[in-house]
Amino acid sequence: MAENEFHGTPLHGETKGLGELPTACSRQQIGTLGWNILREDVSLPAAVLRSPCIEHNLQWMQQFMQRYGVALAPHGKTTMSPSLFHMQLAHGAWGITLATAPQVNAAYQHGIRRFLLANQLVGKANMAIISRLQQDPDFSFCCIVDSASNIDALGRHFSQAGQTLRILLEYGVAGGRTGLRDSVQESAALQAIARWPQALKLIGIEIYEGVLQQEADIRQFLRHVVERTRHHAAQGLFHEEKVILSGAGSAWYDVVADEFSGLDLGQPLLVLLRPGCYLTHDVGIYQHAEQRIHANNPVAREMGRSLQPALQLWAYVQSLPESGRAIIGLGKRDAAFDAGLPQPALHFRPGQSATPHRTPADWQLTAMMDQHAFMQIPPDADLQVGDMLAFDISHPCLTFDKWRYLLLVDDALNVNGAVETLF
Amino acid sequence: MAENEFHGTPLHGETKGLGELPTACSRQQIGTLGWNILREDVSLPAAVLRSPCIEHNLQWMQQFMQRYGVALAPHGKTTMSPSLFHMQLAHGAWGITLATAPQVNAAYQHGIRRFLLANQLVGKANMAIISRLQQDPDFSFCCIVDSASNIDALGRHFSQAGQTLRILLEYGVAGGRTGLRDSVQESAALQAIARWPQALKLIGIEIYEGVLQQEADIRQFLRHVVERTRHHAAQGLFHEEKVILSGAGSAWYDVVADEFSGLDLGQPLLVLLRPGCYLTHDVGIYQHAEQRIHANNPVAREMGRSLQPALQLWAYVQSLPESGRAIIGLGKRDAAFDAGLPQPALHFRPGQSATPHRTPADWQLTAMMDQHAFMQIPPDADLQVGDMLAFDISHPCLTFDKWRYLLLVDDALNVNGAVETLF
Repeated sequence: MAENEFHGTPLHGETKGLGELPTACSRQQIGTLGWNILREDVSLPAAVLRSPCIEHNLQWMQQFMQRYGVALAPHGKTTMSPSLFHMQLAHGAWGITLATAPQVNAAYQHGIRRFLLANQLVGKANMAIISRLQQDPDFSFCCIVDSASNIDALGRHFSQAGQTLRILLEYGVAGGRTGLRDSVQESAALQAIARWPQALKLIGIEIYEGVLQQEADIRQFLRHVVERTRHHAAQGLFHEEKVILSGAGSAWYDVVADEFSGLDLGQPLLVLLRPGCYLTHDVGIYQHAEQRIHANNPVAREMGRSLQPALQLWAYVQSLPESGRAIIGLGKRDAAFDAGLPQPALHFRPGQSATPHRTPADWQLTAMMDQHAFMQIPPDADLQVGDMLAFDISHPCLTFDKWRYLLLVDDALNVNGAVETLF
Repeated sequence: MAENEFHGTPLHGETKGLGELPTACSRQQIGTLGWNILREDVSLPAAVLRSPCIEHNLQWMQQFMQRYGVALAPHGKTTMSPSLFHMQLAHGAWGITLATAPQVNAAYQHGIRRFLLANQLVGKANMAIISRLQQDPDFSFCCIVDSASNIDALGRHFSQAGQTLRILLEYGVAGGRTGLRDSVQESAALQAIARWPQALKLIGIEIYEGVLQQEADIRQFLRHVVERTRHHAAQGLFHEEKVILSGAGSAWYDVVADEFSGLDLGQPLLVLLRPGCYLTHDVGIYQHAEQRIHANNPVAREMGRSLQPALQLWAYVQSLPESGRAIIGLGKRDAAFDAGLPQPALHFRPGQSATPHRTPADWQLTAMMDQHAFMQIPPDADLQVGDMLAFDISHPCLTFDKWRYLLLVDDALNVNGAVETLF
């Protein structure tokens, strides 16, 4: 099902960050309404995605994956936006990674068909969601397992449903998150899988390296997993011809590509990498990660121009109550704040500025409340109530989930579309 | 417009925390589907509101306000749930306080008609939202102002619209958020208001005391504001017969009630207090505030039984990867984490437990990622993958905005309804 089959989706207009809507407006019509952020057609605060940056990032990651001969299954939990998922698929993504069964259902309802659930599938209602979707032969799905008890629960459920569930065995590290820690757990898991030959089909191996902090530790972990993958392949434990080997969050995908690409298992191998934040990037944690990648990774270096921060939040100066302090109409309801506060990027005075200017480096947010941000400014800062500011952000995931719609804008801040989120 | 006019609202089922939905199910039908959390009819994680606690809290706050002879304009930004707003109005609330023009619009579209915007109204599109709503003679609205430049911008806009905007003058404190700091700002603001006699109507005074930490400072600030209110009343500056005096977040409403009730201004006075978190309460910052209130406030003490935590999150144990550590399917996507992590409250083993048990005190969350929580447990904890846990939370606002629907449950965890959110 293609994205354009959804052109009639009715817009849920009882939310923020939109302009005045004609009656029964669909999301797809927003790009035709002639809104411009700088003309104040849109209620602020608003979240915008800069289309040229999104396009650049899509192409950059597609090329990066191609050069390594690996496939991209971007983690969709970042944006939970089927419109963006379709863009990722149009730029070569194999399918979409998600974290929960309801996320898979939401994406399926908007035309996505191939999924990796990078999580254990736990609980009756969650298993039932996947069983229902598996009634569609076009629905392609696999999830991860890391314990015999979960494997047995899945075996029981999918046996009763008369279905087969495709699973990846997850390895983890001591002190980390999920995943098998040792050979005792590994044996128990493999024995459990063997108890359900009809209901469960082991098709590969999955890891998440992002709980580790040091490259050397990550490489050691990845090599251990490659060794286990080879071992299981040699034992004939994988029950599809092509084995899946999957890893990589948004910070270490280069290292995972480097370790996982070009392996010879003696049978076809599909390496699936799962960065999600590359699409919008940021100026915080992921920019930091990108600097390391560009310093160290030869492919990234050769490709030149890096990922671009595409997600910005526009907000008004609400109040200038005392010297050195501006109160901004942007809060924890609008932006991630767990990995650095939003950073002032552009300043625009409606009706007076011709174009936005870069904000001076000494305009900085110092704190946020639910609906307000506190910005420290020099006593002589040229700032007025009603001025508009654009903020770059750190941690796109926790910014996306604050918005039901984000506007697509061009370089002149014309709104040429909108994407929905389904959190 | 009453809540029951919306019984046909189509449910947006592409989200989390729901059970299997019949075709074209409305939100109002959810209570008839026979779901029970403990029977695993609902996909976890899920957010539930315990109806008996909600009912208790509604009655408690209604009584508290009645005893002080003040009115309640609960801050709706907490829940952004018109269904809950209607419950608050049914329990005596004067109207709903909100933080932004789009929030007012969302609530208006769901039948709410009387609003206090506890914020400056800034920007062309935001003013246009209010102008559009003011075309309905049943729409009652006022907002706050704290600067001459915002007052002039409002004057220009509402003059051109041929409308009158009702405004409250906001006072603030040095080092605080918005609000007039000194007499120079106050004079400038009053002069600006006087420039727009048709477009702007000063009807009262507003403050937010929650930026202060100490009761003595708060009382001093409140007394200063009362003094200014008396002064302006004596000058005849208020242009409706009944003067509004509004303050109070969810932590200090008792002190504000104590200072603001029973004043004699020589003209009718409507004291509007704006706590929002009382409705669901929590086991963190607001429980802490409530302990102070019950220790110090004679009315609260006399009323006995305090506010009850009504909002819980149910989630599964996803993985038990190593001794002492459980990984829970609950993350920053599901719960506030800025004022303390969620606290384990109940443990239930589907198919085995008869009823949920209180979790031992040594089961504690230590960290959260986007979709996972890390729970520290003793090595011998009786916990299995697939077990269900209920978590109490701290900071309801930032938990509500993670959910599009929250389920209303009775004491046996039967789902008897659902409320929507409109963030």
